[in-house]
Amino acid sequence: MTAKLYCFGESGNAYKAALTLELAGVDWEPVFVDFFNGEARAEPFKQINAMGEVPVLVDGDLTLTQSGVIQQYVVDTTGKFGGAPEDKYDVMRWVLWDNHKMSSQAGPLRFLMNFLPEDKRPQEVIKFMQGRLNAAYAVLDGHLRGRDWIVGDGMTAADLSCCSYLFYDEPFGFDRADWPNIDAWLTRISEVPGWKHPYDLMQRGLPA
Amino acid sequence: MTAKLYCFGESGNAYKAALTLELAGVDWEPVFVDFFNGEARAEPFKQINAMGEVPVLVDGDLTLTQSGVIQQYVVDTTGKFGGAPEDKYDVMRWVLWDNHKMSSQAGPLRFLMNFLPEDKRPQEVIKFMQGRLNAAYAVLDGHLRGRDWIVGDGMTAADLSCCSYLFYDEPFGFDRADWPNIDAWLTRISEVPGWKHPYDLMQRGLPA
Repeated sequence: MTAKLYCFGESGNAYKAALTLELAGVDWEPVFVDFFNGEARAEPFKQINAMGEVPVLVDGDLTLTQSGVIQQYVVDTTGKFGGAPEDKYDVMRWVLWDNHKMSSQAGPLRFLMNFLPEDKRPQEVIKFMQGRLNAAYAVLDGHLRGRDWIVGDGMTAADLSCCSYLFYDEPFGFDRADWPNIDAWLTRISEVPGWKHPYDLMQRGLPA
Repeated sequence: MTAKLYCFGESGNAYKAALTLELAGVDWEPVFVDFFNGEARAEPFKQINAMGEVPVLVDGDLTLTQSGVIQQYVVDTTGKFGGAPEDKYDVMRWVLWDNHKMSSQAGPLRFLMNFLPEDKRPQEVIKFMQGRLNAAYAVLDGHLRGRDWIVGDGMTAADLSCCSYLFYDEPFGFDRADWPNIDAWLTRISEVPGWKHPYDLMQRGLPA
């Protein structure tokens, strides 16, 4: 049975799940959630996920939310992207770090800078979040110096989590040219057979 | 051998790890990191954790960072706080949600409102983060309606992650009286034998 991923193109968190499903070869299809018109925070969707968020994966009787959980499910069911057994905690470490320090800032910041009307963009908040994100980019770029992948010698859920927002073109203060190790790593990921840009995996909520 | 947890009292993220170790009965001791004087971001500590963060657990040859990873290690080694096997993904879901939506806001917000000089507190940022946190409290409070614990019928890493910042007394816009289900749940946790307040588990960096 085809697994259904509730998602929309602009969500980097949904992209983490979608790209992991896609590259692992899982039989899945996207179900569009009209986030920008409030669908994720309205009652019918909250019956699926009370957190009011995408992504949600429905696979038969199983409903899973949080991108890191969906990634772990893909690891458990396909054997892919979990890394070596001894690297389990290290993969989890970077997925948690991404959720805590990177995506939790990059998602809202990109929203504020691109999807809010220009006269409603809170400049002090934007500057604060960019500062926090620059510290996160420095950690990631430093870690990738001399490494092809975040953990071990192949792509894992850690890469597929940390890369997600960095593939979007809308400006949010991230410039690949500033971070050469991140830049090379993003190129490496995009050259993996089957890789797709978020807007080629999931329907967008807003016009291009 | 006694495991060492690098931490300081004001860190809710360190508290998640410390409380989990303590309640699981692990032989551990705190190692104070002088965060407020920059120790976590200086080179000697970065040799332990390049992310420049507490908590870090050193147990023999193993070094683990990220509170959620340390919690998972406690679950794996003691068999405690993992919940029922079928609840594995749900426990992980709430740990990730806490990292992404709650602690990632509550930690910096509490810092801005309490540990920065009064004339340096960015009011627009504070208001923005409080708004995001209120949405998170609503999700948690709604989920706890009619439930004793976040997942299943006993305390898990999900509870021990989500509760952490909410036990601190410094004001950051969270009032237990506003959230009756969270309030009752925090009382429930604090009545578990062996529970301790963060400042009774770890040395504070700033005077009381």
